[in-house]
Amino acid sequence: MSDLRAFFDELSAAARAITLGAPVPVADNKAGAGDYDPVTELDRATERVLRAAIEARFPEDGIEGEEYGLVRANARRRWLIDPIDGTRALICGLPSWTTLVALLEDGEPVAGFIDAPVLDELMVAAGGETALGGTALKTSGCASLADARLATTDYHLLGPGMAPFDRVRREARVTRYGLDALAYARVASGHIDLVIENGLKPHDWAALVPVVRGAGGVVGNWRGGSDLSGGDVVAAATQALFDQAVTILQR
Amino acid sequence: MSDLRAFFDELSAAARAITLGAPVPVADNKAGAGDYDPVTELDRATERVLRAAIEARFPEDGIEGEEYGLVRANARRRWLIDPIDGTRALICGLPSWTTLVALLEDGEPVAGFIDAPVLDELMVAAGGETALGGTALKTSGCASLADARLATTDYHLLGPGMAPFDRVRREARVTRYGLDALAYARVASGHIDLVIENGLKPHDWAALVPVVRGAGGVVGNWRGGSDLSGGDVVAAATQALFDQAVTILQR
Repeated sequence: MSDLRAFFDELSAAARAITLGAPVPVADNKAGAGDYDPVTELDRATERVLRAAIEARFPEDGIEGEEYGLVRANARRRWLIDPIDGTRALICGLPSWTTLVALLEDGEPVAGFIDAPVLDELMVAAGGETALGGTALKTSGCASLADARLATTDYHLLGPGMAPFDRVRREARVTRYGLDALAYARVASGHIDLVIENGLKPHDWAALVPVVRGAGGVVGNWRGGSDLSGGDVVAAATQALFDQAVTILQR
Repeated sequence: MSDLRAFFDELSAAARAITLGAPVPVADNKAGAGDYDPVTELDRATERVLRAAIEARFPEDGIEGEEYGLVRANARRRWLIDPIDGTRALICGLPSWTTLVALLEDGEPVAGFIDAPVLDELMVAAGGETALGGTALKTSGCASLADARLATTDYHLLGPGMAPFDRVRREARVTRYGLDALAYARVASGHIDLVIENGLKPHDWAALVPVVRGAGGVVGNWRGGSDLSGGDVVAAATQALFDQAVTILQR
């Protein structure tokens, strides 16, 4: 596991060498007319570097990235890469964007990291534990929605999930927006208690799972199950808070 | 003006000595039961230090702060202090909170700063110019809502302003949330193009006005006027974008 942690440090350093200190980029639109899905040359360059580093070290593993697709689809181990999660934040000059890498074994995320370069925070999950700068992270003990700090990235992107989300939001203590993967890192560090989102792709959620679980948190879907392939995700500091959120989402 | 800039540096340093590196605080609730308005001992301690520094340097000026009220109400010059803008962000361990100080002459904000300690960014407005680390800031040239990066802190706190805001949001390119005063700093630096909020208190908006205007931006109310006492604020990179936003808000 210490080997894996050292490799995550290397990946983070390689990505930061490209992303950190670069001028705020201009985005292309990946979506068709009438929609907006920004991507920048920084996303692409960062993914290329991460793929090359993984390829060199683990040549038999599968690799899937947001920008460059999947290689070795049949490998038992697969790496998932989101070179820049929070491209909207990045192009607005905001510090909350992150680089996400996850390692899946037989489809299950077992290790990974959330790296927030501007904040110099690399949250690493390996061996069932999550750490920041060598210090183990622990979720808050929040077990009651009335005390909970809730986050979602963009209320208006929840679509049909807006109404169920609103039911939870009205019972939470405070709600924060716009954080992308950083919200899950703050669940791991005990500063946010609950995150509810939908529409996430595997490269969006794969790294969040070991980071939150390794800090003692709970991650599942909006029905309380563990299958995240539908892209709907609840991450909570405690099982009790997770159960409360799911109950209200399903009401 | 260079005297004033040096004084702003002193104020920032005095505030950061308290706020920066402090553990994420626990908030008291300033609002009554059923509502939530967080304040922490950090807010209070920071305001005390800022008030003392202003008092020592300009003993005849009025001073008004979020936590400790107003002294010398009849002074022609008045300082407005928001020791920590974005207390909700602070208690969630997020880097976007700021310290705001404004100098008003005859009720008009003429100088001030937005300081984001975690990001080490002190945006200073004095003499009609806004600068960060000695470099002049300039808003983007964005003159079209279809290209605009829009921000508001909390959609659900807009109340009756939600519907007019939505009309603007649907025509903007991308929307970001949760930034408090940092959104206005990003208008000044050219990374966000438009901010629309309401319900702001004078200590919330006073510092934003010289920072945005000093970078070439436009600040006014939702009807296009310059009176901000109602707490509804539009800040835009250009006059053309400001006019478009106001037209849609008033539709």
